Amino acid sequence: MERIAKVDPWKVISTDVNEKKRVQESLTSIGNGYMGLRGNFEEGFSGDTHIGTYLAGVWYPDKTRVGWWKIGYPDYFGKVINATNFIPVTIRVNGHQVDLAVDDIRDYYLELDMKEGILNRSFVWMKDGLEIAFTFSRFVSVATKELAVIKVSVEVLTGQAELELTALLDGDVENEDSNYDETFWLERNRGLSPYPYLTTKTVENNFGTDRFTVTMMMANQVENLTSDSSNESEMKVEETVKASVSAGDKVSLTKIVSVVSSRDIEESDQVEAAEALLNAAVEKGYDQLREAHVAEWANRWDKADVVIEGDEASQQGVRFNIFQLFSTYYGEDPRLNVGPKGFTGEKYGGATYWDTESCILPMYLSTTDEEVSKQLLVYRHNQLEQAHTNAQKQGLEGALYPMVTFTGIECHNEWEITFEEIHRNGAIAHAIYNYSSYFGDESYLLDKGLDVLVGISRFWADRVHYSQRNKQYMIHGVTGPNEYENNINNNWYTNTMAAWTLRYTLESLEKASAEKKGNLGVSTEESEKWHDIVKHMYFPKDEELDVYVQHDSFLDKDLQPVTSLKPEERPINQNWSWDKILRSPFIKQADVLQGMYFLNHEFSQEEKEKNFDFYEPMTVHESSLSPLVHSILASELGKKEKAFEMYERTARLDLDNYNNDTEDGLHITSMSGGWLSIVQGFAGMRTLEGHLSFDPYCPTQWDGYQFKLKYRGRLIKVNVTAKEVEFTLEEGQDLTFTLYGKEVTLKDALTNSIEK
Amino acid sequence: MERIAKVDPWKVISTDVNEKKRVQESLTSIGNGYMGLRGNFEEGFSGDTHIGTYLAGVWYPDKTRVGWWKIGYPDYFGKVINATNFIPVTIRVNGHQVDLAVDDIRDYYLELDMKEGILNRSFVWMKDGLEIAFTFSRFVSVATKELAVIKVSVEVLTGQAELELTALLDGDVENEDSNYDETFWLERNRGLSPYPYLTTKTVENNFGTDRFTVTMMMANQVENLTSDSSNESEMKVEETVKASVSAGDKVSLTKIVSVVSSRDIEESDQVEAAEALLNAAVEKGYDQLREAHVAEWANRWDKADVVIEGDEASQQGVRFNIFQLFSTYYGEDPRLNVGPKGFTGEKYGGATYWDTESCILPMYLSTTDEEVSKQLLVYRHNQLEQAHTNAQKQGLEGALYPMVTFTGIECHNEWEITFEEIHRNGAIAHAIYNYSSYFGDESYLLDKGLDVLVGISRFWADRVHYSQRNKQYMIHGVTGPNEYENNINNNWYTNTMAAWTLRYTLESLEKASAEKKGNLGVSTEESEKWHDIVKHMYFPKDEELDVYVQHDSFLDKDLQPVTSLKPEERPINQNWSWDKILRSPFIKQADVLQGMYFLNHEFSQEEKEKNFDFYEPMTVHESSLSPLVHSILASELGKKEKAFEMYERTARLDLDNYNNDTEDGLHITSMSGGWLSIVQGFAGMRTLEGHLSFDPYCPTQWDGYQFKLKYRGRLIKVNVTAKEVEFTLEEGQDLTFTLYGKEVTLKDALTNSIEK
Repeated sequence: MERIAKVDPWKVISTDVNEKKRVQESLTSIGNGYMGLRGNFEEGFSGDTHIGTYLAGVWYPDKTRVGWWKIGYPDYFGKVINATNFIPVTIRVNGHQVDLAVDDIRDYYLELDMKEGILNRSFVWMKDGLEIAFTFSRFVSVATKELAVIKVSVEVLTGQAELELTALLDGDVENEDSNYDETFWLERNRGLSPYPYLTTKTVENNFGTDRFTVTMMMANQVENLTSDSSNESEMKVEETVKASVSAGDKVSLTKIVSVVSSRDIEESDQVEAAEALLNAAVEKGYDQLREAHVAEWANRWDKADVVIEGDEASQQGVRFNIFQLFSTYYGEDPRLNVGPKGFTGEKYGGATYWDTESCILPMYLSTTDEEVSKQLLVYRHNQLEQAHTNAQKQGLEGALYPMVTFTGIECHNEWEITFEEIHRNGAIAHAIYNYSSYFGDESYLLDKGLDVLVGISRFWADRVHYSQRNKQYMIHGVTGPNEYENNINNNWYTNTMAAWTLRYTLESLEKASAEKKGNLGVSTEESEKWHDIVKHMYFPKDEELDVYVQHDSFLDKDLQPVTSLKPEERPINQNWSWDKILRSPFIKQADVLQGMYFLNHEFSQEEKEKNFDFYEPMTVHESSLSPLVHSILASELGKKEKAFEMYERTARLDLDNYNNDTEDGLHITSMSGGWLSIVQGFAGMRTLEGHLSFDPYCPTQWDGYQFKLKYRGRLIKVNVTAKEVEFTLEEGQDLTFTLYGKEVTLKDALTNSIEK
Repeated sequence: MERIAKVDPWKVISTDVNEKKRVQESLTSIGNGYMGLRGNFEEGFSGDTHIGTYLAGVWYPDKTRVGWWKIGYPDYFGKVINATNFIPVTIRVNGHQVDLAVDDIRDYYLELDMKEGILNRSFVWMKDGLEIAFTFSRFVSVATKELAVIKVSVEVLTGQAELELTALLDGDVENEDSNYDETFWLERNRGLSPYPYLTTKTVENNFGTDRFTVTMMMANQVENLTSDSSNESEMKVEETVKASVSAGDKVSLTKIVSVVSSRDIEESDQVEAAEALLNAAVEKGYDQLREAHVAEWANRWDKADVVIEGDEASQQGVRFNIFQLFSTYYGEDPRLNVGPKGFTGEKYGGATYWDTESCILPMYLSTTDEEVSKQLLVYRHNQLEQAHTNAQKQGLEGALYPMVTFTGIECHNEWEITFEEIHRNGAIAHAIYNYSSYFGDESYLLDKGLDVLVGISRFWADRVHYSQRNKQYMIHGVTGPNEYENNINNNWYTNTMAAWTLRYTLESLEKASAEKKGNLGVSTEESEKWHDIVKHMYFPKDEELDVYVQHDSFLDKDLQPVTSLKPEERPINQNWSWDKILRSPFIKQADVLQGMYFLNHEFSQEEKEKNFDFYEPMTVHESSLSPLVHSILASELGKKEKAFEMYERTARLDLDNYNNDTEDGLHITSMSGGWLSIVQGFAGMRTLEGHLSFDPYCPTQWDGYQFKLKYRGRLIKVNVTAKEVEFTLEEGQDLTFTLYGKEVTLKDALTNSIEK
């Protein structure tokens, strides 16, 4: 754990420019679902920095073949690529280029304002008796997704100087993880009129995947600055403004950038589209653009904010989660999903992981309109054909959803992940169940949902094998959620989710229309086979310990608790060889417990407790997906200290750099962790059995907490203190739900004592 | 199976230029341990061809990071790189460049003469009524390793023409498996005087591994041709000769090339050294150079030839084996080893595999001087420090020999091989035992041998873990010899070899001098731990089936015999996804049976039979190392048809392209298979218990076979027919050995009836 940013309920603040610069850049990333960028400096920085500007859905297939390619390996590794850097405004004072890596400054202040969605920065620059105060404000508009706005304000405090600001669109960018210093972009067009613009296109690739063309155009509005020159060169367009300034003078530059891409607009129409957007934006000007942006953030917060009383670090954590998650995805574009690093880094590649179904959907179900959640399901339905292709590449029937993808085609490059971590198929099936239970509406399930379920079930039915010796179905050669073990046999979680999927598909088929059944064409023989698998699936269990066994030989390991590790060994993935990790008993993330979270209603309290007590002490939580599941289960089991520890770990994972990897970007796909730990954990909210229930308590570290819930046409506000829980029906009809195991009916408001 | 070359006892012949060109190129590779090349054409070829010219020990570290690099992964993949192509002699007739891919020809004849070690080729070229006969002869001298000699002879049959021959040294070469079309060489020097020469150097790399400088120089001796011009350009030097010729005219060009590298000679001295070599060669001329080369091959054959009567295909197979093996390695250079493709292709990378100890050493023990075998052992001793480095990278004690290496440092790039296929350590320990048993001399063992054994034992002692549940030592996370299963637990073979190594090390330490013991510093605590591991190692066994179990969950698989596969599914590694292969019961190569081959004396006939009958039917033999082990064991078990089938598969693996991959190059490291199947299989020779024994029979497909054996200062000739076995003592003292279980003494000659 390492706390870089100051604790503040609404802000992420730093006052030291040099402290863990890359971590700061990650923490101060901003995005609007369409584009985003790391907290890089407008004026440039000659010290260690990781430039990152990303456009959602714009990617490139890395052509490097991995090791000795074998049949069934994915063709390419799909990576997020850096796009044209649109923020640069280089600053020259008396010919000296301002550079915080080397220059003298004071009063450095960097602030991500999460309430307004604006990144602010200021400092006083000093040289030869001169003192100049610089202030920067930046946002990517959530009101008009194609717009980025940067305002640089300058005030001379002492002395006199020649000031020169150069606003730049810089297409000469590279990825840190590129092989052989590969470049991903070529220039297609550039110009200075009517505004400076640059059109770039991704270079050709060997796989015939989509290429992307992007046009960026900038308008620079100035106060007390005069135009000096405009210049263009290969992959660059720039505009310079200047002024002779002295003490008391204030000048400013507002750089408005419009960004369009071939994902929405054909290359031939891009300059025109970018210009139209920019004309409208210029007419509005900075203040109006800012106002519209802030208003939309206020709207989002109004629905989803969680208030925590008595603990600013916890408060900051959950807001940081929500802010970064909504900055990445707010459901506007059905072709997009929740990327692992969002707009905060280039690591991991791909744009969609099983994290979406396991962690993200459960929060969106409750905090956004039903359409947003449905879009996440439809995304998978749209890629059903690609999922069949993925399975075919393994020589298997049915649909295998990708572990990592942009398009539905698997694009990760480790076999132990790609075709072994097949449990993702279970999460994708479970999301349909989760959605249907939450909304009490099976119309999606019985239409598109069944297409997906049948595809996945066909995969499972082909992927299991019957062990003659054991007279049971088994699943060999998998990687479970615990990625610290690869190519294991009979991962309890995978077997459980496979059997559950088959059962759920069979049950759902019963309810389907004759037409639907006809289209799906599940034969009697096929459904009998599925029934047989459900009936004779092998679920490893140890009778003596009375726990489910993570996989066949887990108990043969040298079992040790995490407390046996030395502090300097952690995180083990940064200190141990992969060999040692694979053979160790240490668990990266919930595995058996993930199953108990997903199918929470199917296991007794006692089962959950025994398994929690067995596995949690061996879990290092080095996957960001782990703490939230443990926090929720710990709350359910009355392990309040553990629940709170896990809350902090999920909600402040990046703010406190728990995994020592925040410099690579933020763990976006677990940004629902804080919210879920509160709502499903502390408040004990459940919906899986088709109706709503709560079991709330307030962590002793807090005075109280409040959140809102959208549920079947209602908006419910929940306020929990140490003594009471209060439900307020803000919208919708009366609702009967379960509170502490008893039915209650909420009309306008309802107050109950805390029972445990 | 696919037979391209014609059957001939001493030759590999092809008469169709276009049939499987790449396979032909592989089969007609030649080498002299120092350098070698594929059967490419001197005049060039515009059709599909794989240019390959290789220098032993000259390599490059591929910088591509594999997947998501983790701690303990090797830093680089070491690859064999194509060196300057020294064979080109382009031919122009009336300005038309001769190209067998498109030109009309007749009487095409390609012949690798294994007896003489010369590649001959001839054809009659036809165009516009012109007919010209071309003949090419090529060898890389086994008498003077730095010399390659090519003779092109031309005879005009009909017509008249302007003939132009251009001899070329072409440094502009690339590897087929390079990433991003990387080039590996830069030019350092070139010139035309005193002879045309080119000096190239490998480009810089990121890992600080050795760079190599190579100088090649050529002298062109002509008959009835006149010099036209010499030219040089980037990475190329050439010399053109010409003549106006008409029917009956004969001309010839002899291109003599000297090749020196920084492995032996500093860059600054290379031109001088190449020139000195060339001067001496030029003085000798083609006939003398050829004579010296052929004489040395005769010398090699005299010691090692195996004669088979009544089966030319078998005869050709074993000679092809011996020829290619001796072309790759004849023990001259202690820094070299037996590369997987020798000089026949670029696949696999690295230069040294465990194949050396498992397959190659056993043949060299009997067919070459003791020093050659010892050099293979010393090679590993020289790399003991690097083996410690490899283990340290995994966070482990002791020595982990590399799976694939040039320098002793692991340079392969799949984790499931690199740090999982640790059984190689067992083979390297076993080689010391094998050598000591064969020669009845423990002086190596008790000196350098113990250094290696203690290093390996320390590794095993740290790599095992104690399973509390089972009260046994286990080895998790390995890949056994059967590479069609990865990351398995308790591979019987690995556990067996680990325990055997510890036992052998402990026994050997008992015999060591006090000084040696002091240097090795094995503490009482350490040796007690080793004893404990030997005593409590877990060896998976199924009591019901009464077989050793390949690994923990092997019997849970859907066990099927290879006969259940459709022909079009084989080889499965070219038709099945890796997922399907890993989960299948099909075995790439001997695994449990490999252990029974290595520790042959420790298992009963009944054990061998039960395990053979259980595993062999599931074995696809898609590793070239597999058939020989099965052939030898089948002979021991009286399964004569199976033994012969496996003999053919090992001896004619490439000649008949059994694995459909001969186009990539030859399976050099299993080229001992034919010899071993005959000597250890059909003749039943054993030496592991420290004395010699035989159990000979003659396959019914043959009339008889003869081989020679060097054994403890003796040269013994063995002649086996259907009825009799005859031993002749060609050199050395009387010898008592075991024949059919009975002691016999060989004085001059000894004849015995065949007993089974």
